[in-house]
Amino acid sequence: MDINAANQIALDRILGAQPALVGVAPARDVIPGMRPDLILHAGPPVTWDRASGPLRGAVIGGLLFEGLAATEAEAVALVERGDVRLAPCHHHAAVGPMAGVTTASMQVYVVEDRGSGARAYSNLNEGYGKVLRYGAYAGDVLARLRWMNDVLGPAVADALARMGGLDLKSLIAQQLTMGDEGHNRNRAGSALFGRLLAPHLARVGLPAEALEAVLRYFADNDLAVLNPVMAACKVTMDAAHGVAGSTVVTCMARNGTDFGIRVSGLGDRWFVAPAEVPVGLYFPGFSAADANPDIGDSTITETAGIGAFAMAAAPAIVKFVGGTPAEAVAATLEMYEITVGENPTFGLPPLDFRGTPTGIDIRKVVRTGLTPRVNTGIAHHRPGVGQIGAGLVRPPMACFEQAVEAMAEALGR
Amino acid sequence: MDINAANQIALDRILGAQPALVGVAPARDVIPGMRPDLILHAGPPVTWDRASGPLRGAVIGGLLFEGLAATEAEAVALVERGDVRLAPCHHHAAVGPMAGVTTASMQVYVVEDRGSGARAYSNLNEGYGKVLRYGAYAGDVLARLRWMNDVLGPAVADALARMGGLDLKSLIAQQLTMGDEGHNRNRAGSALFGRLLAPHLARVGLPAEALEAVLRYFADNDLAVLNPVMAACKVTMDAAHGVAGSTVVTCMARNGTDFGIRVSGLGDRWFVAPAEVPVGLYFPGFSAADANPDIGDSTITETAGIGAFAMAAAPAIVKFVGGTPAEAVAATLEMYEITVGENPTFGLPPLDFRGTPTGIDIRKVVRTGLTPRVNTGIAHHRPGVGQIGAGLVRPPMACFEQAVEAMAEALGR
Repeated sequence: MDINAANQIALDRILGAQPALVGVAPARDVIPGMRPDLILHAGPPVTWDRASGPLRGAVIGGLLFEGLAATEAEAVALVERGDVRLAPCHHHAAVGPMAGVTTASMQVYVVEDRGSGARAYSNLNEGYGKVLRYGAYAGDVLARLRWMNDVLGPAVADALARMGGLDLKSLIAQQLTMGDEGHNRNRAGSALFGRLLAPHLARVGLPAEALEAVLRYFADNDLAVLNPVMAACKVTMDAAHGVAGSTVVTCMARNGTDFGIRVSGLGDRWFVAPAEVPVGLYFPGFSAADANPDIGDSTITETAGIGAFAMAAAPAIVKFVGGTPAEAVAATLEMYEITVGENPTFGLPPLDFRGTPTGIDIRKVVRTGLTPRVNTGIAHHRPGVGQIGAGLVRPPMACFEQAVEAMAEALGR
Repeated sequence: MDINAANQIALDRILGAQPALVGVAPARDVIPGMRPDLILHAGPPVTWDRASGPLRGAVIGGLLFEGLAATEAEAVALVERGDVRLAPCHHHAAVGPMAGVTTASMQVYVVEDRGSGARAYSNLNEGYGKVLRYGAYAGDVLARLRWMNDVLGPAVADALARMGGLDLKSLIAQQLTMGDEGHNRNRAGSALFGRLLAPHLARVGLPAEALEAVLRYFADNDLAVLNPVMAACKVTMDAAHGVAGSTVVTCMARNGTDFGIRVSGLGDRWFVAPAEVPVGLYFPGFSAADANPDIGDSTITETAGIGAFAMAAAPAIVKFVGGTPAEAVAATLEMYEITVGENPTFGLPPLDFRGTPTGIDIRKVVRTGLTPRVNTGIAHHRPGVGQIGAGLVRPPMACFEQAVEAMAEALGR
């Protein structure tokens, strides 16, 4: 099998995916293999003893949310006894930002590739502040999750049923012309998402106060669309996975301890190395000394050619992650060096509508020495604290070097 | 009076204005001097015999809407007999896009400068397609206007009362980081506008179907925020008007026949010359031969330093008005040559957050030979047809030359 030909097949599958948001449902009803004693988390597999603070915090919060534990100590004991099991979201067709913790009764977005019928899933976004995904699990965090599960999720499910689904590929294309890169900046995409849902939400039979709260969620949360966008990227990259001989990266994910990647032609194997601490801007009162290493499945956006790969579209993001608008353009230009093609659906206005750099090639990463760029939030390293900043990070080169070696072995070279 | 010092005062007043959307009410209740037999229109004064097709069509539609005439012929007879009077919106603290026709019972946005308490007004935006402001007046056009007047306007009025108003200066600043220039492209601003209103709209007591229709208006109409933005620019530029010795342009407006400007230090006098036909992209089936000369008060956006002056913020607009993203940046850079300052609140991301070029100086226009750039829609020259394209236009240099001469006379030079 010729690698370039294999990569062209992978690229064609990426470009051909047609992700649409088709529903919201409890994880246990839709996610393959989901069970009450299973806790999904971001990144490659990790054992509890090696789990980072924010991941531990979110797991504890998830067990409290499920009612499987009544206290932090009970939650920890459950995990340590092995009464609940941890597994990557990516092993269950799912993705979650930051800790990515998803439990059986949580409502999740259902995204479908309209062409193939394949599906991917993501939990609901909690917005800013103290949130489970950054490892916070105080009472107000859990109360908000319960409102999201009991009111927000079912309302959006009903609205989506009325709409017949929502075209996420078109939404991403639009947000890239509106200052978003689709990972750290999703203000325009979230506003578009909210306004598309709003008329249908008005008809799902909610009392006025509950409808106000749901519409306020979309008015206040500039990240509302991140999770559906991530699931769209997941189903897109899953389409490109499993092409024999392809060196295209189909997954990049971090659990707060390790950074892991998977490659189209290398099956389900993870190539893993220690995650780095992002470089960025910190909220008042915090510094790099407080930061946890890189965490979250949201790197699926960069894997699919948006996020940091589309930085040129989002010059205003530098106010949030650092840098200058010129560096934002340079970031995108650099990523063309390590990708196999461009996505014409995602035209970047400042680059005269050139398509986003798409399909990371492990060979080009190793040959150029340029690892993929990633935009990310920064979590405190202790459980229970939350977000302390946002910035830029790159995966360790070791992941790509291992993958290149594995490919050489697989091809018998 | 030193001209530069006078212009600094005018600039300070522009930068200091704090426009907020505070209400929606029938024109007769809020617009100073509004009467049932008065038809407000865009641009400088014009007599019926010189009025362009789209302006005539909109006046006819306004009279049908008001029930003052039952047929087109009756409407024309009313105007020709002098039973109704035409006057510029600008003579009544108002602005309207394209024909700008505003009649006594029409709901209008009320925008207030939070600092001074001064107010400006604009009608509600009808969206795309066959609309009154482009000179269409068929039954469906009038039916939509009636729904806007009876359902949309009062609902937004109630929502704004619940919110305590909406900060338009902040909204404009945000939309300029989201691919809008605030004149021809208002997709992001309209999405933000809709999402801010939505939770409050849920509480104004509308039946679910009516609420759905109101929320659909905001979901579908990428120009929804244009009219409030125009009124924000109007109240901002009114604040800078009347500074003795100032050569800053405080109004640019077109009625479809003439282009007119007013200058801060030159009182209420209009400096007028024939309007040009925009250069742009036409909808299928139309060409420049069908185009009416430039029309509308929406040039108040460029007068206030956004619109074409903020083109650098909106590279994607070239798909709509023509040109390239590089030309969009060049357009903004050129406008710094003819303005007295920059507006730091309106930072342009692609220019490293440099403030928009603000305060057109008639002296610099004449000295450099560079007239202000304007983004605009293009109307068919016949009444009753509507929009046929969008493009770029510049005011005639004669307006600025006349104004410079008048200033020289006023200063006794």
